Amino acid sequence: MSDFKNVSLKKEANIYYDGKVTSRTIEFEDGSIKSLGVMLPGEYTFGTNEAEIMEMLSGELEIRLPNEDWKTLNTPETFEIGANSSFDLKIKTVTDYCCSYIK
Amino acid sequence: MSDFKNVSLKKEANIYYDGKVTSRTIEFEDGSIKSLGVMLPGEYTFGTNEAEIMEMLSGELEIRLPNEDWKTLNTPETFEIGANSSFDLKIKTVTDYCCSYIK
Repeated sequence: MSDFKNVSLKKEANIYYDGKVTSRTIEFEDGSIKSLGVMLPGEYTFGTNEAEIMEMLSGELEIRLPNEDWKTLNTPETFEIGANSSFDLKIKTVTDYCCSYIK
Repeated sequence: MSDFKNVSLKKEANIYYDGKVTSRTIEFEDGSIKSLGVMLPGEYTFGTNEAEIMEMLSGELEIRLPNEDWKTLNTPETFEIGANSSFDLKIKTVTDYCCSYIK
């Protein structure tokens, strides 16, 4: 099956917004970290520490990055968020995603 | 970090009930399969193929197994469901779980 091999996985979920946004954290052999998550329809704001690359695996959303206007993104689009930043999301349909943290 | 090591992970989520129940499938070196999932409050019915052991990592729920009455379970309780069966759930608070499939 499997798209990621030889990874380590934290058992407990990361749970935000009463469970409307959840993710699992995975660590690769080279020490890099990704999270795989699901966002249900709703409006959310998230902050970053490290820069992030978000790959949409399913769903449609609107995003507002710092100093930008709202824009609509559909699967399989990808977006990047800078380090120490924040961004707003309006999730339109259930969005499955893979988030890569950039050191 | 990590509770599971050297596992393979399917990238896409399993999505049920409009995303109110989601899980990710993981495969261990010995070929055994688990899924890690989150269930939001609501009422659900699930069927099994293989027998399952469900370990609650967070949350509170009521469950009705075949030919049994409803019972309330709290984290960190575990319940088992037979193969080729079905069961009903009333999720009371966001429930994070680990499901093991028994060959």
